[in-house]
Amino acid sequence: MAAGDTDIDGALERLRHLPYEDLGFAKIDHHRALRDSLPEVVLGQGKTAEQVVAIAERLVERSGRLLVTRIGRDVFEQLRERVPDAAYNETARTATVERHPGEALPGICLICAGTADLPVAEEAAVTAELMGNRVERVYDVGVAGLHRLLDHLPQLGEARVLIVVAGMEGALPSVVSGLVAAPVIAVPTSVGYGASFQGIAPLLTMLNSCAPGVAVVNIDNGFGAGYLAAVINRLAHTEGQAPSHRSED
Amino acid sequence: MAAGDTDIDGALERLRHLPYEDLGFAKIDHHRALRDSLPEVVLGQGKTAEQVVAIAERLVERSGRLLVTRIGRDVFEQLRERVPDAAYNETARTATVERHPGEALPGICLICAGTADLPVAEEAAVTAELMGNRVERVYDVGVAGLHRLLDHLPQLGEARVLIVVAGMEGALPSVVSGLVAAPVIAVPTSVGYGASFQGIAPLLTMLNSCAPGVAVVNIDNGFGAGYLAAVINRLAHTEGQAPSHRSED
Amino acid sequence: MAAGDTDIDGALERLRHLPYEDLGFAKIDHHRALRDSLPEVVLGQGKTAEQVVAIAERLVERSGRLLVTRIGRDVFEQLRERVPDAAYNETARTATVERHPGEALPGICLICAGTADLPVAEEAAVTAELMGNRVERVYDVGVAGLHRLLDHLPQLGEARVLIVVAGMEGALPSVVSGLVAAPVIAVPTSVGYGASFQGIAPLLTMLNSCAPGVAVVNIDNGFGAGYLAAVINRLAHTEGQAPSHRSED
Amino acid sequence: MAAGDTDIDGALERLRHLPYEDLGFAKIDHHRALRDSLPEVVLGQGKTAEQVVAIAERLVERSGRLLVTRIGRDVFEQLRERVPDAAYNETARTATVERHPGEALPGICLICAGTADLPVAEEAAVTAELMGNRVERVYDVGVAGLHRLLDHLPQLGEARVLIVVAGMEGALPSVVSGLVAAPVIAVPTSVGYGASFQGIAPLLTMLNSCAPGVAVVNIDNGFGAGYLAAVINRLAHTEGQAPSHRSED
Amino acid sequence: MAAGDTDIDGALERLRHLPYEDLGFAKIDHHRALRDSLPEVVLGQGKTAEQVVAIAERLVERSGRLLVTRIGRDVFEQLRERVPDAAYNETARTATVERHPGEALPGICLICAGTADLPVAEEAAVTAELMGNRVERVYDVGVAGLHRLLDHLPQLGEARVLIVVAGMEGALPSVVSGLVAAPVIAVPTSVGYGASFQGIAPLLTMLNSCAPGVAVVNIDNGFGAGYLAAVINRLAHTEGQAPSHRSED
Amino acid sequence: MAAGDTDIDGALERLRHLPYEDLGFAKIDHHRALRDSLPEVVLGQGKTAEQVVAIAERLVERSGRLLVTRIGRDVFEQLRERVPDAAYNETARTATVERHPGEALPGICLICAGTADLPVAEEAAVTAELMGNRVERVYDVGVAGLHRLLDHLPQLGEARVLIVVAGMEGALPSVVSGLVAAPVIAVPTSVGYGASFQGIAPLLTMLNSCAPGVAVVNIDNGFGAGYLAAVINRLAHTEGQAPSHRSED
Amino acid sequence: MAAGDTDIDGALERLRHLPYEDLGFAKIDHHRALRDSLPEVVLGQGKTAEQVVAIAERLVERSGRLLVTRIGRDVFEQLRERVPDAAYNETARTATVERHPGEALPGICLICAGTADLPVAEEAAVTAELMGNRVERVYDVGVAGLHRLLDHLPQLGEARVLIVVAGMEGALPSVVSGLVAAPVIAVPTSVGYGASFQGIAPLLTMLNSCAPGVAVVNIDNGFGAGYLAAVINRLAHTEGQAPSHRSED
Amino acid sequence: MAAGDTDIDGALERLRHLPYEDLGFAKIDHHRALRDSLPEVVLGQGKTAEQVVAIAERLVERSGRLLVTRIGRDVFEQLRERVPDAAYNETARTATVERHPGEALPGICLICAGTADLPVAEEAAVTAELMGNRVERVYDVGVAGLHRLLDHLPQLGEARVLIVVAGMEGALPSVVSGLVAAPVIAVPTSVGYGASFQGIAPLLTMLNSCAPGVAVVNIDNGFGAGYLAAVINRLAHTEGQAPSHRSED
Repeated sequence: MAAGDTDIDGALERLRHLPYEDLGFAKIDHHRALRDSLPEVVLGQGKTAEQVVAIAERLVERSGRLLVTRIGRDVFEQLRERVPDAAYNETARTATVERHPGEALPGICLICAGTADLPVAEEAAVTAELMGNRVERVYDVGVAGLHRLLDHLPQLGEARVLIVVAGMEGALPSVVSGLVAAPVIAVPTSVGYGASFQGIAPLLTMLNSCAPGVAVVNIDNGFGAGYLAAVINRLAHTEGQAPSHRSED
Repeated sequence: MAAGDTDIDGALERLRHLPYEDLGFAKIDHHRALRDSLPEVVLGQGKTAEQVVAIAERLVERSGRLLVTRIGRDVFEQLRERVPDAAYNETARTATVERHPGEALPGICLICAGTADLPVAEEAAVTAELMGNRVERVYDVGVAGLHRLLDHLPQLGEARVLIVVAGMEGALPSVVSGLVAAPVIAVPTSVGYGASFQGIAPLLTMLNSCAPGVAVVNIDNGFGAGYLAAVINRLAHTEGQAPSHRSED
Repeated sequence: MAAGDTDIDGALERLRHLPYEDLGFAKIDHHRALRDSLPEVVLGQGKTAEQVVAIAERLVERSGRLLVTRIGRDVFEQLRERVPDAAYNETARTATVERHPGEALPGICLICAGTADLPVAEEAAVTAELMGNRVERVYDVGVAGLHRLLDHLPQLGEARVLIVVAGMEGALPSVVSGLVAAPVIAVPTSVGYGASFQGIAPLLTMLNSCAPGVAVVNIDNGFGAGYLAAVINRLAHTEGQAPSHRSED
Repeated sequence: MAAGDTDIDGALERLRHLPYEDLGFAKIDHHRALRDSLPEVVLGQGKTAEQVVAIAERLVERSGRLLVTRIGRDVFEQLRERVPDAAYNETARTATVERHPGEALPGICLICAGTADLPVAEEAAVTAELMGNRVERVYDVGVAGLHRLLDHLPQLGEARVLIVVAGMEGALPSVVSGLVAAPVIAVPTSVGYGASFQGIAPLLTMLNSCAPGVAVVNIDNGFGAGYLAAVINRLAHTEGQAPSHRSED
Repeated sequence: MAAGDTDIDGALERLRHLPYEDLGFAKIDHHRALRDSLPEVVLGQGKTAEQVVAIAERLVERSGRLLVTRIGRDVFEQLRERVPDAAYNETARTATVERHPGEALPGICLICAGTADLPVAEEAAVTAELMGNRVERVYDVGVAGLHRLLDHLPQLGEARVLIVVAGMEGALPSVVSGLVAAPVIAVPTSVGYGASFQGIAPLLTMLNSCAPGVAVVNIDNGFGAGYLAAVINRLAHTEGQAPSHRSED
Repeated sequence: MAAGDTDIDGALERLRHLPYEDLGFAKIDHHRALRDSLPEVVLGQGKTAEQVVAIAERLVERSGRLLVTRIGRDVFEQLRERVPDAAYNETARTATVERHPGEALPGICLICAGTADLPVAEEAAVTAELMGNRVERVYDVGVAGLHRLLDHLPQLGEARVLIVVAGMEGALPSVVSGLVAAPVIAVPTSVGYGASFQGIAPLLTMLNSCAPGVAVVNIDNGFGAGYLAAVINRLAHTEGQAPSHRSED
Repeated sequence: MAAGDTDIDGALERLRHLPYEDLGFAKIDHHRALRDSLPEVVLGQGKTAEQVVAIAERLVERSGRLLVTRIGRDVFEQLRERVPDAAYNETARTATVERHPGEALPGICLICAGTADLPVAEEAAVTAELMGNRVERVYDVGVAGLHRLLDHLPQLGEARVLIVVAGMEGALPSVVSGLVAAPVIAVPTSVGYGASFQGIAPLLTMLNSCAPGVAVVNIDNGFGAGYLAAVINRLAHTEGQAPSHRSED
Repeated sequence: MAAGDTDIDGALERLRHLPYEDLGFAKIDHHRALRDSLPEVVLGQGKTAEQVVAIAERLVERSGRLLVTRIGRDVFEQLRERVPDAAYNETARTATVERHPGEALPGICLICAGTADLPVAEEAAVTAELMGNRVERVYDVGVAGLHRLLDHLPQLGEARVLIVVAGMEGALPSVVSGLVAAPVIAVPTSVGYGASFQGIAPLLTMLNSCAPGVAVVNIDNGFGAGYLAAVINRLAHTEGQAPSHRSED
């Protein structure tokens, strides 16, 4: 069952020599741009403005692309002084740069339960779009108003992968997954009050979904959902090749 | 805003002289039979067989009706020696006696998500039926197979009050409540595994329902749901009178 | 047990063609006004002022009635510029419009444990009143001072449905339910400190109530309790008809 | 504020020379019999039968008194072979010996909510009785049947200290404390089901009691409650002396 | 076992006619001043300044005594305009009035683990002092520096009741209870960080104390601990009489 | 944004007429076999042997394929009497039938941290294999022995989708996801002890993975992981077509 | 800051070629015996008897030493058929082999709070002894009986590293750490009842210890504590050398 | 097993006469400077600026060294007025004084997963450095980028004790511990979002580490980790002597 020694040594060698750059307080991976068609994302939360700008500047220099999540407008203004072509999305609270856009792949459908869940949904959309996908948005379709959801049945049926964002009781992914055969990525949000417990309620609902074909990412993790959807959607457009091989061509 | 002193004294006097019987280890309320059209229920769990039989015997003697919940077949056999007309429901694990059956009121619809939730659903049904109601059962209609539920839309629309029993992710009450205007009593069950946590997941889901008109009872509390549904359904059949007045006629 | 195909098709057809309006970021249901005698409520929390005003304006135009919950005075001031006859309730933090008031139905009794629970209680009261009910308020009657509660026994006995709001230990619904035969809707509040855990303590207390006839809504969910009480109280005044039929006349 | 050095040295000296006996796997304190009028209790749970018997035998030899809690009948039978005058309480699951009984002090009232809470209540009663107290029992008086409790108002008023045992929602201590001026020791029990969570629900209820004068012991800790009630009741009978002084006469 | 009917009727009659005053948003009990030697405490938290002042003014008028807990200095300044002899304790955040001070009873020892726990400890001290007790304070004696605690052994030995306040790991009550025979009231505080979880860690520690004679009040509930200690200490000074009898003389 | 009315009506019509069979206690979906290349799975847990056999028999009759999970050997023996060609997997505790096997698709790599996690891993493997996939197993490669994992780098790199099963601290998916570009489905198991809390610890670890491209299914939900991996792997072999379209050919 | 490339390549090379043996269901590390002076421990829990015996047999063959934890007597009997010189410790539930015993290092002191904590304490002792240490045991010295602990002050002072095992409230490590300057490894046990929650209470207590110099291992993890104590104690006997260098000589 | 009486009396005597200074609100231990080579640390959080300055001033006067943790810059400015040579670390939020620096001991390696974990890591570094150690820092080496960590293998191998700081999923200590033979002190941080729960997720991960040789301190407790690492590292440099003996020379 074990692979040949030469293969292993080669793989280890490649791992060992992946390029990264040491800023002292942070190490920046530049090979991700090659491998995943996305530079390493910068999580803005928990970093000083100086750290965010320093890391972002290096990333965009090398790969021509950038995604900073959870970045306030004030930090973004500092970033723009160094990266003038950075764009800010107010709802998603993201900063992005894309200097070499290609054609967007269809296949991702993004469903969002309530108006208050929009920031998380938009973070997912921005991420998937930056990774080269077109995102079909279906918004404000909670399970208590099934007629709104049923109106979008054809769109759901055309998706290769779906992202479903919901707070409060989080029941939407189960209902959606029962209507389609494609994989569903469920994102619980911390929207809600009372016994929602900052997203624990919808998280548990989604984990306990009675419909197979559903997997869950962390509470409010729009980025993770968008990233995973993009990875899966790319599989659907590149028959017969493993993702890691493709990235090294 | 305060009620008249005479009213208060009268109410207190009635409260003070409610009949009960002291068995030493338990006190039995006999006025419940008068007031609520149900004798005090005997919760079998946590009592010895001797205690269950002693309490049950007194209750049936006075009111001609009996409900014992969470009673195993072995304890039931001991009960039947003293109360030969007691009936056992294997699924619900209840013992019942009804010596003066009347006409059953329509209006309660009982919806159950999965086969494994049946014991809780049947406990609710037995309770509501013993309290004089006819119960319409709609079983095995989880949210991941909406077509099964939509087939029952007319039945749902005719109900005056609905009981919805669900384990796992507990999303069914939200969906049902979006389809009807009648009150929905949601019952989470401890059925499920993994992060269901013995019913906490569906309990939280139901509490966070995005649909108004839903209230929740304790995990696995089929009895409580059946009792409350019966109380509400009776309201729907007796226009213009408060429940407690009615019971003292 | 299955209903006739024609009935199902008719029900589905009605569901499919329920009117709603798409604002892009939100979809507004207009059929609720017909069905439930209440337009869809606008939950102010988690929405921008612009979103609240836009949704509220459409709703009041179509139905002549409006309820916005959890709305601060500043957002309300923006709303009043577009809807001049909107009224603000400082304690409940609600905005309301009622252009076609009818006669209020008696039968709802609202009991509140402590002074700090008043915002939740008033949210319940405003909701039930806007849905056409008269609400009898009994305030500041915690279980540690039974004499205060016993003074209101006559009022309790006259209610067709009771709402009981309590924080801290949340024992009041159990005590009240033991004194009446009508259904009790229990509302835990996040008032309290120490091991109250933002309402978990009273929530658990209420779920575990030893008195049957109690159901629970989410922590601080005054709106949900008022809505459900209104739905039940209407049942008590309209003998022999299911709610959803009534609403389509 | 610091006490005199001589006092401290004396106190330390007394502490240092408290008599105990080393069995290898356990150390037995014999000075407790002198100080607290109770030999160290043996918690049966988690010990082998051999360990229980060995410890119990030494204790009874020295002090003529014994309390073993949470001991099954099978272990008790082994104990009785070595301590023939040991008595077993089936409900409380305790073994006791009292070779020098004195006159029992009045003043402790023990209130128990439900039949299923009896084992915990009886463990408290046995403990307090072995420590020289008379225990007034008031059983099966849950908050949902206030008339049962109000019937015992005179007994409650005569108590110097009250123990209140309750599972499920645990509301009884708050109600009782509102009716008396004496201290109330609340004991949550793991009796209940669903969201009772093995006693967490009543524990939280009791901690959050809106009535002052209530303190709480661990879930199911009848022994602790009985012990504390005995210590407090002794205070009420020995005016003007600190407990630790008294015990060394 | 049941008390005579006449006794019960008398007790109920007394309960029914306890004097209180209705302010609309609150009901004030005036009989507490008679019964408990303390007017009803005003919990400042969760009330508006207007509510606090209105309630406090009535209480002090009737009983000449007042305790407001959790009151900020700004609210206190408003209170002082109406009650000029009110005193403010900065650490405890309490406002007090005592117009008829008597002689303070000795017997309460208050032990506090860390400097950051002082606000809770002082709330307990102020409460017990206002109820007529002298409070011996032993501060900054955590279990990691046993020599500091052992220096106070004589003071501990003289107490009739002890209050032990501790945050972080909450181990102090167990250690103290092993050194004395008097009852120990343990108060967990929300002081700490990391896995202290706002006081849950010390709360659990105290509930699981291996030393009998310990009871616990809610997290940060200095008032409750001071109140209970005062009630117990009074027992120790009034041999042979139940508390509720005494209060009605 | 809304799809055409004709499309919606068509989709609703198809949904409405999906074939299922009503056994009274359960409703069996037969269209799943058409749509998902898997008959509806039978979750053995929580059903009686009679229910399992009845459902399984119908399913295999219609589709020639069957998967029963969490089925004990005793229930399996009853099943085999009716379905003689059913096979039992002792480790996974599954029963399977496959009457029309096709060629297995490569691309799924299943990584398992410890020997005790094997039952969950094998449930995933059996599911994916029955859905037409070949599963590459890499077992016993916990993060504390990186050299074991690094030996399998080539296998990891060839996978189109990976399932990673781990209990205890659940760190393996993060490490694996950092080594590949393909999507990772993480399965926490309830294996472990102490503060593992029946799988909560690895569940939280996986949700908080610092590596993007990871999604999580419920604790011990090997079936869900195997199902989702199969759906994703099929995408990788059928370029340019949405899954639900494909299934209706 | 980065180390030289040659060093890194050498380290990676050593890591890559660590010897292990693949049993199919498990991979056995043989280099641990060289590096850590302990063969990889076999956690008996969650493995079949066959798996335990197979792994144990290989380990003992190669290294002459063996430790199996959490192994029942029945599995041990099967093991002894293949490894006749294996020894069983009834309290610790361990199987051990030591064919080349050396001289035991002094310096580890093991302190245990209660009799019921002995199994965890003994697991720690067996582990440390097998790794070449002498273990000084101090048993049954809970914080509620300080005089017992103070009697052992000299032994505590001589230790280079201490293991403190405690259940219930878990306060012992804080007290011990205040008395010594050596590192303390705290082990919470699941012994206790009520709000101990299977060891969460002592775990939180220990994590929140107000004494520095304390670190915590998992609930009931005697093995981990013994292992870590041995590693630290070896440091104290081999001045000036890093552990990993030493092990490769 | 018991130590000689003279030894015990001597140890107690020393304990009894440990020098401390009483500031009223706090007691300051001066013997710690002698015993542990560190004055008692001042935890800035939860203390007023006046308290911090008063305690710090006394400590530095006596020992010439000082460590204040969790101190804001504003409080530090007040401190510097009284202790002009105090130094402030912006990242760690510590104030330190070291008037008699010695030679730093090598042997501590500090590994930090992410940029946002730096404050906790630096608190550990400052503590260990003040206690006389040299700290090797390896920063930004999360488990999702193994190549960054593998680059530091030689540094890891040279450490006598390692501190590993990580938030989010907290997997780093397990991976590190598998690569070294030295003890690992794991520090979970509250960095993260969603289901990280303020550090509970990494705390559980670390407690459940599958690698032996790992112990855990409280969430964000950099000080505790640095302190313990210093104590262990000193052991590695002073062969054959118990720590407490050494400190009294």
